[in-house]
Amino acid sequence: MSGPPPAVAAVRLAVRRALAGLPSGTTVLTACSGGADSLALAGAAAFEAPRLGLRAGAVTVDHGLQEGSDARADDVAKVLAGLGLDPVVVRRVEVADRGGPEGAAREARYAALAEEAAARAPAVILLGHTLDDQAETVLLGLARGSGARSLSGMAPRSGDHLRPLLGLERDTVRRACDLMGFTAWEDPHNHDPRFARSRVRHEALPALERTLGPGIAAALARTAALLRDDADALDSLAGELYAEAAVAEGDPGPVLSVPVLRNTPAALRTRVLRRAALAAGCPAGALSAHHVRELEKLVTAWRGQAHIDLPGGIRGHRIATTLRFAQ
Amino acid sequence: MSGPPPAVAAVRLAVRRALAGLPSGTTVLTACSGGADSLALAGAAAFEAPRLGLRAGAVTVDHGLQEGSDARADDVAKVLAGLGLDPVVVRRVEVADRGGPEGAAREARYAALAEEAAARAPAVILLGHTLDDQAETVLLGLARGSGARSLSGMAPRSGDHLRPLLGLERDTVRRACDLMGFTAWEDPHNHDPRFARSRVRHEALPALERTLGPGIAAALARTAALLRDDADALDSLAGELYAEAAVAEGDPGPVLSVPVLRNTPAALRTRVLRRAALAAGCPAGALSAHHVRELEKLVTAWRGQAHIDLPGGIRGHRIATTLRFAQ
Repeated sequence: MSGPPPAVAAVRLAVRRALAGLPSGTTVLTACSGGADSLALAGAAAFEAPRLGLRAGAVTVDHGLQEGSDARADDVAKVLAGLGLDPVVVRRVEVADRGGPEGAAREARYAALAEEAAARAPAVILLGHTLDDQAETVLLGLARGSGARSLSGMAPRSGDHLRPLLGLERDTVRRACDLMGFTAWEDPHNHDPRFARSRVRHEALPALERTLGPGIAAALARTAALLRDDADALDSLAGELYAEAAVAEGDPGPVLSVPVLRNTPAALRTRVLRRAALAAGCPAGALSAHHVRELEKLVTAWRGQAHIDLPGGIRGHRIATTLRFAQ
Repeated sequence: MSGPPPAVAAVRLAVRRALAGLPSGTTVLTACSGGADSLALAGAAAFEAPRLGLRAGAVTVDHGLQEGSDARADDVAKVLAGLGLDPVVVRRVEVADRGGPEGAAREARYAALAEEAAARAPAVILLGHTLDDQAETVLLGLARGSGARSLSGMAPRSGDHLRPLLGLERDTVRRACDLMGFTAWEDPHNHDPRFARSRVRHEALPALERTLGPGIAAALARTAALLRDDADALDSLAGELYAEAAVAEGDPGPVLSVPVLRNTPAALRTRVLRRAALAAGCPAGALSAHHVRELEKLVTAWRGQAHIDLPGGIRGHRIATTLRFAQ
């Protein structure tokens, strides 16, 4: 007796590893769009979860952004129920900004998934992101130029969200989907050049493969994993340094000790200064690495500058050996 | 009276900032290929260095890889001498691997530059790398998928090598070169698609600009600067952890304490393990992130594994609460 074809075996193994160690009785909800990746994921979860004493269900989200999306969601639900998944939930969501940025649809979807998980606790959500999705995320982060965290892509596990397929190439997962006998739906947004991710997938990554050789997606995913570890370590160390440097409560934000900040690596100092500026009320989206560098000069290159202007009408002041914020 | 055109002013300002603080009497040697970037750099150094009490000279390296390169080097030297630079040195080098990888030419060039600097100490070498060169270096590092250090590009200063133009776009520097009245030489290698850097410059970066928008080169350079700080901080902290974890001399390499390594962020643990494996004799070029991850499992996921095979015929062993290397 031979086992399943390699692509199916690879997807199942990835799911088994991700689920190993979950408390027995946990509900495993696959988030399934009806696309090839999440169908293969649902198929593997339906196979593996019961063997691990876990309950396998699924959630499909109807974003209501395309004609007939409601009927399609019902079709996907039927396929999922046919796999023996239970519960199978269809969630219809309102996307705030119709036809707008990809972010709005994602936010609505994640909120609905979080609600379903909470309603069935203990539960986890399985997401079908592949190694290629991870590579695309890294490239999108690269365009922002904002450091290790934004290049670290998606976490294999964050809270109750698991991404078992992050180490598998999209080709493998799609082959598994075909071999499992599913007819996948292709989201037209995936080919719509108005979306940055679609342009990255169909233009940027192929161009990088042509110039730098094959394996660039895997290299980007490896980079993401390494930089995620780096960002975790530095954030944790910066948390300790913040506690040491914040010598008093200011108004707004903390009063920071300059001597503590001076004798520390720049990577930690800038992280502490960023946190402090956020605590003082700077809006996260507007606070750039450039602002933080300017703030840093009050510590490392102070020549009597009066203050640094930060977003949100906040100012950073150096007063003797402290750094304070004002509105 | 108006000042110099903005591009010339920008290059001069960048050079002035890089040279500020050097001990008076230092010799500033611009490494000049005769290309636009290094000619503009030489022009700015000839202007700025004497005003800072520094001596301005130049070195041009003849790699002997192209027909007529010797005559060209002499022409470049004449232009440089015409700027009042003194000394102007022409260095002829042997490139180990003729027509081979870009690395061989670079190695020979850097060795010659280091000799010239050493012979004229105190001296610094100015290199003409621009923001676009930095972006290309980051993309080349990305293809290796090997973490923060390989994405941190070139340092603005490392030892006696300074890169004053790292914050300026190539277009600005080339405009400055034209405005200074130089006729620049274009290295045909820059357009030769056999070279990875040329492919990155003429294919990969333009494709990223088309898909992710303009400003991608600046974003990559910003990323490089942030990740350089991260890598510096983590390397320094890993150095401290190494000293704590290496509880004895092994043969080869150190004997590491598992408890010390276990209770530390992965980013530091993997750096310590990498250093230890190198100290045990693993060749740096062959030791991958994958090997280090396997070694890490002896610390974090030990289930009695006998050993881990590493490059160079080295093995990593877990013995009780220590990690040791053997040949």
